[in-house]
Amino acid sequence: MNAEIIAVGTELLLGQIANTNGAYLAQKLAEIGVNVYYQTVVGDNPERLESVLKVAESRSDLVLTIGGLGPTEDDLTKQIVAQHLGEPLVTDAAAKAKIDDYAATSGRNSTPNNAKQALKIKHAISLTNHNGFAVGDLYLNQNGTSYVLLPGPPAECLKMIDSELIPQLKKQGQQSRVFTSRVMRFIGIGESQLVTDLSDLIGHQTNPTIAPYAKMTEVTLRITASAKDEQRAEEMIQDVVNQILAKDGQYFYGYGDDNSLANVVVQQLITRKLSVTAAESLTAGEFQSTIGSVPGVSAVFPGGFVTYANEAKHQLLSIPSAVIDSQGVVSKATAIWMAKQARQKMQTDIAVSFTGVAGPDELEGQSAGTVWIGIAYRDDEPEAYLYHFTNGRQQVRARSVMAGLDLIRQKLAAN
Amino acid sequence: MNAEIIAVGTELLLGQIANTNGAYLAQKLAEIGVNVYYQTVVGDNPERLESVLKVAESRSDLVLTIGGLGPTEDDLTKQIVAQHLGEPLVTDAAAKAKIDDYAATSGRNSTPNNAKQALKIKHAISLTNHNGFAVGDLYLNQNGTSYVLLPGPPAECLKMIDSELIPQLKKQGQQSRVFTSRVMRFIGIGESQLVTDLSDLIGHQTNPTIAPYAKMTEVTLRITASAKDEQRAEEMIQDVVNQILAKDGQYFYGYGDDNSLANVVVQQLITRKLSVTAAESLTAGEFQSTIGSVPGVSAVFPGGFVTYANEAKHQLLSIPSAVIDSQGVVSKATAIWMAKQARQKMQTDIAVSFTGVAGPDELEGQSAGTVWIGIAYRDDEPEAYLYHFTNGRQQVRARSVMAGLDLIRQKLAAN
Repeated sequence: MNAEIIAVGTELLLGQIANTNGAYLAQKLAEIGVNVYYQTVVGDNPERLESVLKVAESRSDLVLTIGGLGPTEDDLTKQIVAQHLGEPLVTDAAAKAKIDDYAATSGRNSTPNNAKQALKIKHAISLTNHNGFAVGDLYLNQNGTSYVLLPGPPAECLKMIDSELIPQLKKQGQQSRVFTSRVMRFIGIGESQLVTDLSDLIGHQTNPTIAPYAKMTEVTLRITASAKDEQRAEEMIQDVVNQILAKDGQYFYGYGDDNSLANVVVQQLITRKLSVTAAESLTAGEFQSTIGSVPGVSAVFPGGFVTYANEAKHQLLSIPSAVIDSQGVVSKATAIWMAKQARQKMQTDIAVSFTGVAGPDELEGQSAGTVWIGIAYRDDEPEAYLYHFTNGRQQVRARSVMAGLDLIRQKLAAN
Repeated sequence: MNAEIIAVGTELLLGQIANTNGAYLAQKLAEIGVNVYYQTVVGDNPERLESVLKVAESRSDLVLTIGGLGPTEDDLTKQIVAQHLGEPLVTDAAAKAKIDDYAATSGRNSTPNNAKQALKIKHAISLTNHNGFAVGDLYLNQNGTSYVLLPGPPAECLKMIDSELIPQLKKQGQQSRVFTSRVMRFIGIGESQLVTDLSDLIGHQTNPTIAPYAKMTEVTLRITASAKDEQRAEEMIQDVVNQILAKDGQYFYGYGDDNSLANVVVQQLITRKLSVTAAESLTAGEFQSTIGSVPGVSAVFPGGFVTYANEAKHQLLSIPSAVIDSQGVVSKATAIWMAKQARQKMQTDIAVSFTGVAGPDELEGQSAGTVWIGIAYRDDEPEAYLYHFTNGRQQVRARSVMAGLDLIRQKLAAN
């Protein structure tokens, strides 16, 4: 079945708030196999809402509105939809009792516009509002378009979706199949290269689907399967995951929407009881701050150095001035010295170092984006690698941090 | 003129990401007097995108698409819009050169799907992508509907809106009256307090309007005036600004959408030739990384210390173990020692220090969010202040950084 979401509210339309309710609703519908093909945002304007309803009805089996159920004069969704359906509005007794009850216990007067929130479309199933007063509607139409009306405040809307709407839709058998998805995260490979590597797989897949997404410093793939049950869907996903890993496994670092490379690396360090420090020049503390964002990092991270100026490299890390003078501060030699000295001074298992040109100006004749990253791992000979990043100071720094984390990830994989 | 935004992308439609680009674009258009009446989200599907374009064209003078300009097979927006307009796609030479240049310097192969990103609609004005490769389009149609095509990744989209689209639309005279706005930025006061202080002013204002906006660590007010010309609008804004400063001037730190407290503080330090360092425990380098984001900071920031563990505070800052043992690590005494020693070791004019409980767990019996921030200013007696922040580890750290910057701002104002 084809569904469409219409969010109503001028503050949404003008960008004062983002349409997070719509995103959540679409996700929950996808999980029960209801496909959302369109989402529309329209202001609190009766004519334009009516015109959007007409367009939606012409192309969708299920139209879900969010917002405009409240007590103010702006709130017109229920009135417009009822009029569009040729149904009257009637009072939902339970919702009315809740409003009166609140008025009585709080000692406030129940204003007429409060009572408006207890109205429902005749012949609709009421959706109880557990976090507010405005009642929702599920208006089923076997031969035409069905309608769902949800409140706008996120606390009310999300709760109504979870506790009322999804169970009702399941009960009504609106969902045909189970949908499940898994996110794979990659570092060190660009979106276009990944897609090129996997073009056969992506081109031929319809179930599961493989959707690539490029973030600032990494790429993710979302693999979504639909099947008759959860177990079968998971098996289908695992099969595709295995094929992807066979091609580009060396760039894969973890699963999950909320995961991060910092999280994966820090968890591995904690598990393996390996401590880490850093000496940062162009990143100015961003690497340490990034690992510092992971709860529990204190078990493996004692602290480290921000050595922005050359004198600080000399003073805090005891790097001989002759090294910087002869090799340059943005050099393999300086990166290696920084990593080696940081590790030695903090007595950690691992140290990474960052020296480069954040930009916008060049430095020592080297262009913005030129970065050396060093790594000292236990008693191994320290190494350093050259990178060229683009797209401005903040991206150069953020990509440097990710590359440093990736060096640790690779080192752990090899040891 | 009536505008409509169409965001293209299955991941948006399915709710995997929220349509923050659309919200931002609507805001920016409103500021130049372009009214957005509809926003639509559609998946990466040629037929449905085409049908949405037809609906949009029937009701809007300006249609702006976001997304689908990337290198993958999913990315079809430019192809569909060009076909809809009956225009061919041609290569934008500058965009192509940038892609080839990147391939050459990074040593990666330039894949054919990368070259696709350099295509533009014939007769369109190219919108340069400062943070990526996919070029945007502004296709003007005096007698019908004009089109704008923007990329989907937020870093690329927002930058293109600010640096390319809005200036072009202004130049094309798409706005009838002059709309001008100015953003005032505040630190150390909450949104509700600011709004309460200014309630008379906000309640009575219709032109200019005053729109408060609460960000994670600060509050902004956007003052927007419409007038017959720029100069008159600026005068109207200045009048409101003066009234606001009279009430809450002590919390005001600067103007501008892209401004930040870090930027304001670093510029002041550069102007006054005052150097700064930091010793960070719970923030783990985030303060230094934040000032490190400001170009030119190297003139006043030699580097500093990340002392996460107690031993690091002892080892790197020579803080007597007895201080931490007797007073606790999250204490006024430790914060003062950290600031004093950091300043002395780096020989700077100013040092700030951060010690506290990032969470989620408590530390030494002190709850998550308890933070001491110290400041040593020249030969003044070092001071430290106690804060209680809420809302989780990342907010506790981010608010600590802002509070540290604010301490410097206040110190500079007083000296």
